Parts: sequence; C-alpha cells; structure tokens
Amino acid sequence: MSDTQNKTKHEIPSLKSLEQDFGQKFAYPASTKTYLEGSRSDIKAPIRMIEQLSTRVGEEMVANPPIPVYDTSGPYSDPDILINLEKGLPLLRKNWIEERGDTEQLAGPSSEYGVARSIDEATQSLRFAHINPPRVAKSGNNVSQMYYARQGIVTPEMEYVALRESMGLEQLRKNPEYKQLLKQHPGKSYGANLPEIVTGEFVRSEIAAGRAIIPANINHPELEPMIIGRNFRVKINGNLGNSAVTSSINEEVEKMVWSIRWGADTIMDLSTGKHIHETREWIIRNSPVPIGTVPIYQALDKTGGIAEDLTWEMFRDTLVEQAEQGVDYFTIHAGVLLRYVPLTAERLTGIVSRGGSIMAKWCLAHHKENFLYTKFDEICELMKAYDVSFSLGDGLRPGCIADSNDAAQFGELHTLGELTAKAWKHDVQVMIEGPGHVPMQRIEENMTEELKHCLEAPFYTLGPLITDIAPGYDHITSGIGAAQIGWYGTAMLCYVTPKEHLGLPDKEDVRTGIITYKIAAHGADLAKGLPGAQVRDNALSKARFEFRWEDQFNLGLDPERAREYHDATLPAEGAKIA
Amino acid sequence: MSDTQNKTKHEIPSLKSLEQDFGQKFAYPASTKTYLEGSRSDIKAPIRMIEQLSTRVGEEMVANPPIPVYDTSGPYSDPDILINLEKGLPLLRKNWIEERGDTEQLAGPSSEYGVARSIDEATQSLRFAHINPPRVAKSGNNVSQMYYARQGIVTPEMEYVALRESMGLEQLRKNPEYKQLLKQHPGKSYGANLPEIVTGEFVRSEIAAGRAIIPANINHPELEPMIIGRNFRVKINGNLGNSAVTSSINEEVEKMVWSIRWGADTIMDLSTGKHIHETREWIIRNSPVPIGTVPIYQALDKTGGIAEDLTWEMFRDTLVEQAEQGVDYFTIHAGVLLRYVPLTAERLTGIVSRGGSIMAKWCLAHHKENFLYTKFDEICELMKAYDVSFSLGDGLRPGCIADSNDAAQFGELHTLGELTAKAWKHDVQVMIEGPGHVPMQRIEENMTEELKHCLEAPFYTLGPLITDIAPGYDHITSGIGAAQIGWYGTAMLCYVTPKEHLGLPDKEDVRTGIITYKIAAHGADLAKGLPGAQVRDNALSKARFEFRWEDQFNLGLDPERAREYHDATLPAEGAKIA
Repeated sequence: MSDTQNKTKHEIPSLKSLEQDFGQKFAYPASTKTYLEGSRSDIKAPIRMIEQLSTRVGEEMVANPPIPVYDTSGPYSDPDILINLEKGLPLLRKNWIEERGDTEQLAGPSSEYGVARSIDEATQSLRFAHINPPRVAKSGNNVSQMYYARQGIVTPEMEYVALRESMGLEQLRKNPEYKQLLKQHPGKSYGANLPEIVTGEFVRSEIAAGRAIIPANINHPELEPMIIGRNFRVKINGNLGNSAVTSSINEEVEKMVWSIRWGADTIMDLSTGKHIHETREWIIRNSPVPIGTVPIYQALDKTGGIAEDLTWEMFRDTLVEQAEQGVDYFTIHAGVLLRYVPLTAERLTGIVSRGGSIMAKWCLAHHKENFLYTKFDEICELMKAYDVSFSLGDGLRPGCIADSNDAAQFGELHTLGELTAKAWKHDVQVMIEGPGHVPMQRIEENMTEELKHCLEAPFYTLGPLITDIAPGYDHITSGIGAAQIGWYGTAMLCYVTPKEHLGLPDKEDVRTGIITYKIAAHGADLAKGLPGAQVRDNALSKARFEFRWEDQFNLGLDPERAREYHDATLPAEGAKIA
Repeated sequence: MSDTQNKTKHEIPSLKSLEQDFGQKFAYPASTKTYLEGSRSDIKAPIRMIEQLSTRVGEEMVANPPIPVYDTSGPYSDPDILINLEKGLPLLRKNWIEERGDTEQLAGPSSEYGVARSIDEATQSLRFAHINPPRVAKSGNNVSQMYYARQGIVTPEMEYVALRESMGLEQLRKNPEYKQLLKQHPGKSYGANLPEIVTGEFVRSEIAAGRAIIPANINHPELEPMIIGRNFRVKINGNLGNSAVTSSINEEVEKMVWSIRWGADTIMDLSTGKHIHETREWIIRNSPVPIGTVPIYQALDKTGGIAEDLTWEMFRDTLVEQAEQGVDYFTIHAGVLLRYVPLTAERLTGIVSRGGSIMAKWCLAHHKENFLYTKFDEICELMKAYDVSFSLGDGLRPGCIADSNDAAQFGELHTLGELTAKAWKHDVQVMIEGPGHVPMQRIEENMTEELKHCLEAPFYTLGPLITDIAPGYDHITSGIGAAQIGWYGTAMLCYVTPKEHLGLPDKEDVRTGIITYKIAAHGADLAKGLPGAQVRDNALSKARFEFRWEDQFNLGLDPERAREYHDATLPAEGAKIA
C-alpha cells in the first residue's frame, strides 16, 4: 500500500507537467482552432485552419488562404479550454444524451467488479476522482445511434459528424481564393458513394443502412463524435496499453493525448495487468475520441489467465463494467466457432490473435460452442442499453502471408456476417475487423468478401502487412497494405508501429505509427476521390514550388519533424534526382 | 593546396578505419556468403545463406534449413577477400571483357576533362591512385550486352545474372526440407512472364527484346552483373552525392558500401561541386553494383552553372569522361522537347527535375530543339563503344500529385519511346525513368502507357509519392506507390529517403530509404508471383511462431534494427492486438 502511495505521490506533479506540456507543445504552428456551427449553438464541430504566408508576384504580395484540416485533437488544442486531467474533459454530449429522455442515471456502477473497485482501498490513490455515476437506457429503450437513425432521427451526433466531415467545403467552393487549390483528379471509388457535401441526413441514412457507425457510448459524454464508414474519410486507430512492467497510467494518458494530436481518430486501450480498470477510467475521462477495448483480456485477467475458467457471467460483468465506464466499442471474438479451430491446424502460424486463441482454447477445453456466439443476443441487449458498438473480432486472422485468405479466416468472416445481421435486428452498430498479413495480390479479395458477406458493415483492418520479412519496419510493410485496402473500401485502419512483433511502442513509435497511417488513410481518400481531399496536397505543393518553407512545414502531417529535417545547406534546386 | 593536403592527411586513416568497419560490422549475423557456379569456374554468382536454429518437437530437435537471399553486398561480405579501398575491388569481369577481343585499352583518358584532371596538381592528393587506362570498343565494334544478345551470344554476364536471379531454387525444390517453405500463393502478374527457373538463354532473349538490361560498362570490371527487367526480381536504386559543403569523398564511399550492404542494387552518384570527377572514381573502383550518373549536372558545373552556355561538345566530352571512368548508365533528358515546355506553364509546380529544368532553360534561351534529342544518334554511338545503358530521363515528371499524368509528362514519355526505338537500332540498352508524384488511382496508367509507348523497355520510377502532405516521411508516401508500380511491372524503384524535399540524407536516412524500398520491391515480387519469393517470408513466420527470436532477427531485412527494438519484457503472446 505504501508503495502505491509513494508511486502516486510521484505521479501527481507529473499530471500537472503533462497539462503544461500539452499547452506549450501541443498547438500546431500557424494554426487556429475553429468550429463549424450546426443548427443549434451546442453543435460545434472542430476544424483546424492552417494560416499561410503570402506569395510575392513581382512587386505585389498575393495572399494564400488558410487551409482547413480535420482535427482529432479535441479540447487540448483549444486555448479557451483549461485542461485539468484530474477532472477530465468538458461534457460536450451531456445535454444531447439527457434531452433524449431515454436514459437514467444510476446511483453507482452496476457490475460486481465496478462496485468492488469503487470501494477498493488498495487502488484508491490511483482512482480517477471525479467519476459520474453511469447512465443506462430506461427499461425497454434502445439508445443506439442506429436505432435513432432507423427512426428517421438526425441526432446532434449525426449533425456534428456531418459538419466535421464536410470541413466547410461548401464555403471554400464559393471563395475564388480556393479555386486553384480545389482542383482534384477523379477517383476510382470501388463502389464507394462519396457525396459532394456530407449532410446530417446522409449520415443518418448511412447509419440506418449499417454502412457506417458513430461509436458513442452514452457514458462517454466527453466524446467529439466521429463516423466510420466507407463513404466518409478513412479513419485510423491507435493502440495504447500499459503493462504493469513498462508504463504508468500517466504515460498512457500522455500517449493517448499525443496520439490524437498526431491524428488518431479512435484509440484502443489494450492495457493489461492490475490497474486496467483504473487506467481505462483516466483515459476515457480525458479522451475526446472513441475508446475501444477487448473485454476478453480483462475477463481473462479475472481468471488469473486461465482461458478454460472463463464464464459467461464473468464476461458479462466485464462488459457492464466497461460499458458503464464509457467504452465506445468492444472487440468481441464471437466468430471463432468450434468447427473453425481445426481449420487452423495446417497453418504456418496457427492462431495469432490473442482473443482468438483465448476463445479457441475455451472451445476446445469444453468442447462447446464459443459462448460469445451462443450468448450473442444477450450481448446485443447490453450493447444497445449503452450504445456500445461491436467491433466483431477476427480471431482467426492470418498471422503471416502464407495463411492469408484461408478457410479459417473466411469461415469466420462469414459468421461475422451472420452476427452482423443479428446485431442489426437489435439496431446495434457493427464494424468488422480484418487482417493482418496479406500479400498485395490477395488484399482486394478481403474487401470484396467482407462487403459481400458482412452486408457492407464498415471494415476495420490491421494493416495488412504485405510481407513478413521486415521486423522493425512493420509500420511500413503494413502501411502499404493499409493504403490499398483503404482505397478498396476499408473504413478504418488500425495502426502498426515499428515495434510490432518486437516490443511495446513508446511515444516516438506511436508518432511514427500514426503518421504512417495518416498517410495511408489520406492516400486512400485521394484515390477514392473524396471531395476536397486534394486541397492540402495542392496547397503544400504550391508552397514547395514557391520556396515558402514555413508553409511547407506547417501544412504537413508532422511540422516538427519536417522542420528538424530541413537542412539549411540544401541547394536551392532541391534534393531531387533528375 | 596545403589545405587540400591537410584534408587528405586527415582522411587517409579514415579509409583504413572504414575498411576495418566494413570487416567488423558488415557481416550479417548467422550468414554465410556462398557462390553459385556456372558453366566455367570464373562465373560465380553470390548468394547469402542465413543459417537457422532447430525447432524442438517433443524430445527431438528438428533442423531448419538455411535460407538463401539475394546478395548485393559484393566482396565486402566475403571473408576471403581483403578490402583495400585505395586499390579498389577485384576485377571480376576483366577476363570476360578481354577475351571477347572487341575492345582495346587506351593509353589514357580520351576526354579533354579526363586528361586535364589526370594531371591536375590541385586534386592530386584526392585522386584514386590505381586507375587503369580505359578501354573502348575497337573501331566498328559494338560491345553492348544487347548487341551480343541479338547475335545469339549468352555472355558470362548473362549467365551470371541467371544464376543470381535463380538463387539455387532448382536445388531447393529437390530438397524435402524446403517443401513447406516453398509454398506460395499464385501471383497476379499484370502481364509479366516469370519463368520457373531463370536460364542464361532466358536472360539473353529478354535483353535482345529490350525488356531487360544489364548495365555493365566495360570500364567497370569490378561489377557483379545484375539485371533490370520486369520478368526478374524488382530492383532498387539508392542515390548518393556529396556536396562540397556537407560531406567528403570518404563519407560517400562509406554510404555506397553501406547502401549495398542493406540491399541497393544500383547506385546513382549525384555528387556536385569541385571534386565530382574524383569522387566518382573512388566510388566506381569500389562498387560491385552498377553506377549511374546524370552527366548534365557535371556539364553544367563546367559552365559555372549557366544552362544557356551548355554546348554539345562540352556535354559529349563529359560523356566520354564518365564512360571511361566506368559509369554503367547515364540519365539523359533527351525527351524534354521545346514544344513540351509550354505545356508545363499551367502546372502547379512547373518543372521539378533538375535535368529537365536545365534542358528546358537551354531550349527556351536558344529557341532550339534540345541537343540531347538532335544528337541522339551520336550519343548512341558513344554508348555502344563502352556499353553504357540509357536511363532516359523524365525531365517533365510531375512535382506534385496535381501535375501527374498530364500532357507534358505523357508527351515526353512518347518521345522516350521514339528514342528507345532509335537506341535499339544501335543495340544500345535502354531503361525509362518515371515519376515522381502520382496518387494511387493514377499509378497504373503510368505503367500501361510506358509499356505501350516505350515498347516494354524496363521502367525505372522514383517512388511515386502518393500524397504531398508528409514532408519528413516521403520514404513512406513513396514506398506505398513504389510497391504498387513495382507490382504493375516497374523493373527498378529509385529510393526516396525521409529527408526528401528537406535536406541531404545521412547514413541513417540511406538505411531507412533502402529498407523501405526493399520492402516495396519484395512486396511487388510476391504480388507478381515470382517463383521462390515467399520462402523468406515463410521461414521468418515459422521462426516467429516458434519463438525463435534470433532466427526472426536474422531472417529480416535489418537484423540489427529488429534486435535493438526487441523488448525483453514483451509478453509471450506477442504485441499484437486481437
């Protein structure tokens, strides 16, 4: 106990220093945080405007207009908001949730584990101090965005993402200053349907059809809503996760905040170890982006790591615990069926998904069907009471290119399609996880199979890595695959860092992973022909051609890195070969 | 003069320390350099065999066979060869060249500049001391590999590359230890014709058809021949180049040697400044891979940097000078025609190729057609007397994605096709340079246009970068495009380092650029279905699955980096998300 206290005493100033750090180092150079206002004053979607220097044309200085970029960084980049990590972020969605009148506030957590942890003395000092009691749907109500969408309701969340996706493009089109910058090549969309302007009604219809999701737990009112679907900007996810050995809660909060600063659209918290519940609370309360988890990891921890000892009751309690903390999407490996497990026997690398191997072990030990599959309707009941979205896990994804697109992988994918249809009967939002390791010529099949069997539910892939021969560079092997599968229609790309297969990423690795995936996602947007996607490329290229170095740095994905690399001795013609 | 001498005195020990460095740090772990012998004992193509540890199966230890990998590192990785940078590498091809009896050795350099430099006192101390007098074709002879191929001759160079490309695959197929590792997914070849085993005759026929080249100047006998063509392994080029300001000759030699250690198949020497002639000599004499240059850079230096003052005579003298030093391929911007220049006026970034802008300036200043175009037959006469290959430069390549695939770029490409046909009349080997900056949906058109208009001559592209928004990460923006265009049929990929657009690369940047491009090239080989390409992936994946960490590192593209990143605290299940 005294050990923990000492540790905490050591950590408290560190929180303050983080806050100061965010304030001082967090702002992007030459950037202004602004908001696009919707139909009511509390719908204000963030946007970052990058100011540019003027161009000298003869004697005259001709102004270059500011360039809007999508902003994932939340209140941390708003100079008008005082950040206090101990108190958490402002509750942007509180009123939206309450005014719907379909939820109630509980007196306290309703999961056994949640109750136990709320009064646990050993972790008291680690606990986030300002936890609001959780909300849940009133009996008989469904509070999912999909439910509302199917009722024909455009929620504030939907209107918010419509503004956020459009990024004021309609205004830019009316402004002659942007005429040259708006020039864009036609895309090759592979069947995506990208509207010229994203409206709230378009968002609603995509969610109603299941082609997009807004992961938005009612217990995550700090969230700035975002959308995942192939008819919107391609998104990226960054993973965090402490292990008791290597990092503290504060380090994870720090990585989360820097992740969204560099551009992560969602964060998965894959923490393990003793303080997983507490770490998650700190992250959610301070996160403006959706948080995803893999609940089976924590459930397994509760058994002391013995897969065979997992029970439905224990898992269900974990879902309630995490749903009441505000987790926005759950990876659930409900497609790992008993009959698929033998299909992995001849594989070069068997089952590599941690969740997949836990469930396979359980199935084999009990010779029973996966309880996540048999209890799927009950899980759906729970999901819709908090609006947690499914991220249906690919527990049988290939662990090497040799195992790509095999019977086990595609068998599971078919089951995920069946489960998608089931979840949609409950109006629960769904996305589908995908591989993994796939050589280039086999990537497209993954997308077409997913679209066909999973009914166009958004696809969310890990890479894929296009070769297995480059440990230490798997952000690149996977970034290549991610750009391609994003182009073909994947809605969100889960990043991979240089440490993949080798160790846990530090802050620098997170930065490298995120920027690599921003490149892949943006490359996919350009290739699909997303309206307005080329503006930033055009602006940066014009700055480059005019030797406006500062603008070149500022318009880039990582201004600090570009500035650092810039070499004052560079000859004027540039470093290109001819 | 005393300044130079001091500098040299300072450099001499540094050469020795480089040699020691190469010996001590250069060898790949657990690797054996071996040779595949051809029809005669002096045809020995290098191959690196990576030894593996055994796998424990129950009580037994089951051996894992050594994995062959393509080896670009030359004599530096052969423990039986003593490296002496001052003397240069062994003359592997000397006898092959001499026995053909179609060349003669000159008394000394025949270019004006070469003569002047050979007796120049100011640079005496910088000069490579053991220069052999150059060779040239006897009057009326053509010494190009294309000429021999069209005569039906399989030269030792051709047989060498056949062995080198095949990597002993035929033996592996007969050995049951490799059965599982040889499993491979079918490729999607986009029209490439990849033989199960590469024979000397196949190499000959590809060169005769112009679909492949072996850049192999008769004055570069140190060369280990390699082939560039879409029916062979995809190759990568690394650029070097000192500028008087930032680096010394020794540093460039060091970068060259490390480049080939990491896997560069060819090197372009883009040095500028006062000692460009001397630097080149040091690099060629110590390079086992083909060296390319852009002769117009040096010609421009001779005018003091004034493009308008360039003359054909000056340029021709530079070609002779460099051909007699042993440069294996020349980038020649002969497709920048006067009528194309106005087509770049509406571009966002005009002309960004240095060579392209030099020639455009010259054309406009004189209002004359590009002399590289009008004198093309004379250039061909010269190329075939030394067997220098053309790398027909894309002086009008796009400098941003907005300018991709436009009339200027494709106009020039058509002219490069016309010039290809002309060069082939002289039996001169040709490859075609390509872009540059192209969003993903427009990459394939570059390949199909090139194949169609340039008669399937090998394509050699710079990336392309798929977006312009990531300065500091353009190895990645371009690596994505390179993997794709390599898959579509590009024969060689010119690397881009993280410093592109920002500064000159240091040794670490070179490493990052090369590994990124090895990934792209190998990814393309896999996607095309190159026979045997998946063996290394399969072996590494098996090692990964069996937790043979050392084998995982050793089988990777960069064992040192992987080992450095490996974190001993990593949980056994690996760092993957589920």
